[in-house]
Amino acid sequence: MPVDVTPVWFMRQAGRYMSEYRALRERHSLLEVCRTPDLATEVTLQPLRRIEVDAAILFSDLLLPLEPMGVPFDFLHGEGPTIATPLRTEADLERVRCFEPREALAFVLEAIVQVKRELAGRVPLIGFAGAPFTLASYAIEGGHSSTFVHTKALMYGSPAAWHRFCERLAGIASDYLVAQIEAGVDAVQVFDSWVGALNARDYREFALPHMRRIFQAVAAHGVPAIHFGVGTGTILAELREAGGDVIGADWRIPLDEAWDRIGADRAIQGNLDPTVLLGPLDRVFAATDEVLARAGGRLGHIFNLGHGILPATPVEHVQALARYVHQQTRR
Amino acid sequence: MPVDVTPVWFMRQAGRYMSEYRALRERHSLLEVCRTPDLATEVTLQPLRRIEVDAAILFSDLLLPLEPMGVPFDFLHGEGPTIATPLRTEADLERVRCFEPREALAFVLEAIVQVKRELAGRVPLIGFAGAPFTLASYAIEGGHSSTFVHTKALMYGSPAAWHRFCERLAGIASDYLVAQIEAGVDAVQVFDSWVGALNARDYREFALPHMRRIFQAVAAHGVPAIHFGVGTGTILAELREAGGDVIGADWRIPLDEAWDRIGADRAIQGNLDPTVLLGPLDRVFAATDEVLARAGGRLGHIFNLGHGILPATPVEHVQALARYVHQQTRR
Repeated sequence: MPVDVTPVWFMRQAGRYMSEYRALRERHSLLEVCRTPDLATEVTLQPLRRIEVDAAILFSDLLLPLEPMGVPFDFLHGEGPTIATPLRTEADLERVRCFEPREALAFVLEAIVQVKRELAGRVPLIGFAGAPFTLASYAIEGGHSSTFVHTKALMYGSPAAWHRFCERLAGIASDYLVAQIEAGVDAVQVFDSWVGALNARDYREFALPHMRRIFQAVAAHGVPAIHFGVGTGTILAELREAGGDVIGADWRIPLDEAWDRIGADRAIQGNLDPTVLLGPLDRVFAATDEVLARAGGRLGHIFNLGHGILPATPVEHVQALARYVHQQTRR
Repeated sequence: MPVDVTPVWFMRQAGRYMSEYRALRERHSLLEVCRTPDLATEVTLQPLRRIEVDAAILFSDLLLPLEPMGVPFDFLHGEGPTIATPLRTEADLERVRCFEPREALAFVLEAIVQVKRELAGRVPLIGFAGAPFTLASYAIEGGHSSTFVHTKALMYGSPAAWHRFCERLAGIASDYLVAQIEAGVDAVQVFDSWVGALNARDYREFALPHMRRIFQAVAAHGVPAIHFGVGTGTILAELREAGGDVIGADWRIPLDEAWDRIGADRAIQGNLDPTVLLGPLDRVFAATDEVLARAGGRLGHIFNLGHGILPATPVEHVQALARYVHQQTRR
């Protein structure tokens, strides 16, 4: 990534807000795109043709490891994931299988090789995997949740089974990320999107040890790791402790306050509210000014949204935002 | 409320986790219960017969003002609210009507009179209303949301119309709360349940002025006001500034850190994770010990959950928790 300006990329920078993505999705399901290296490559590259982003992120889905784990899922009504038989008991958790990502998810690794070839070194490619708490919550709730009631009931009620399950998920994420690094990704992001539902005490007991294992496995391979979650303002110190060279922060916490919690020896990624992009451009720029002012021109700030780009976002706003961040931060 | 122990009550202490509530709901819809003073009274009193709570909260629903505002809604599939024609444009927002709560919501005020008679001074009765941001989000999204995409798009894109709409919602909430106070409630809670989706900057611009107006209207009537939201750990100072004698905090922030942000001159309500009640009792007690230790025995702590009791909660756990808080805090 460049160091003469603040680097910028966007979570879900390839997605439904782009007409070329929607056109491709009229012919192919989300899972078809993920499982077909040519299509995943094409979609990964789409935003790079239109938006001044400083990194590509592999187009894929957090849930892909569920299938080879023995937890089949699908995307119904277009986008929301549904797991037909959610894991609800200790026995369900024990049934989950480990697998070799180089076999079961070979299509992801092929897509990485193709994307890297197409990029020809222009920008780095980010790979990713879902974190244990977040992946567990999908498998246990059967989809998205706002209360995580089944997940937490199992966590509190069957802590030993929870930890065995998360050890397996941490092993799967580690193997998967190492395979992605070997296939060529230049950085990885661990998505613990929903871990903000835990307080510091519970994070430390139920999530931290498993996250640490993933970051240790990745660190041995010499690429930077980004640690991402939503609504984690009050547990950023614990996320730091778990690991990651870069810690993500969402819009609910001012970037400088977040960086204080993360520590000056780590980089920070964030933290514009993605819904701001639905409003007029002067508001987008004003909110961006505040993020950049709080970053104070310090090296180690990667500009991003606090969560993924929303489907209703005008593509022109995303274009203008990336350009604006570069203009305002040129050193 | 008592001062010789830490007072305790629970959001949604009347609800589906109780068999007597489920039995009554087999015969009556949620809206029937809300609109029939005898039924609302019965349900309000149910938890008092079984659980050592130090306050009753009127059984009602946040959305009741929507109907006389001209925004009809219903609860489909049992519990989730659905607004058939959500407000999506500036013109939609302008159409919303003010109303006289003593006429349109007379059944709520009658229920308050009945509950007060039945309570005969044993414990105080808490009334409540929905805050502008939270009520607006239901009316605009058409139900519950995780991104608040339509709400924020209108807020950012049409700020003048947003403010006119929220002024009207603040007026409605103020009138409704004053009518409840005149009918006999001893305290009021303003539910800004979803305002944690805003950062401090947006809270200050889009929510704070309207919240301040409500708390000023209530303050003139001499009953304590509780200011509640979920996921507000990073904007508690702004909630304090908006008003309320008691500020709620959810489980994502340690209670002592929350109290520092709220200020020692205000009381605090919280902050056990409601999902903890789904786990074993020793874990409930350990998590409660931590909340009480962080409260440090200071006056001005009202024990509550960070959000409402979940339907799957064993009633015995709620009983044991209330008893435990009293035992551990007896002065």
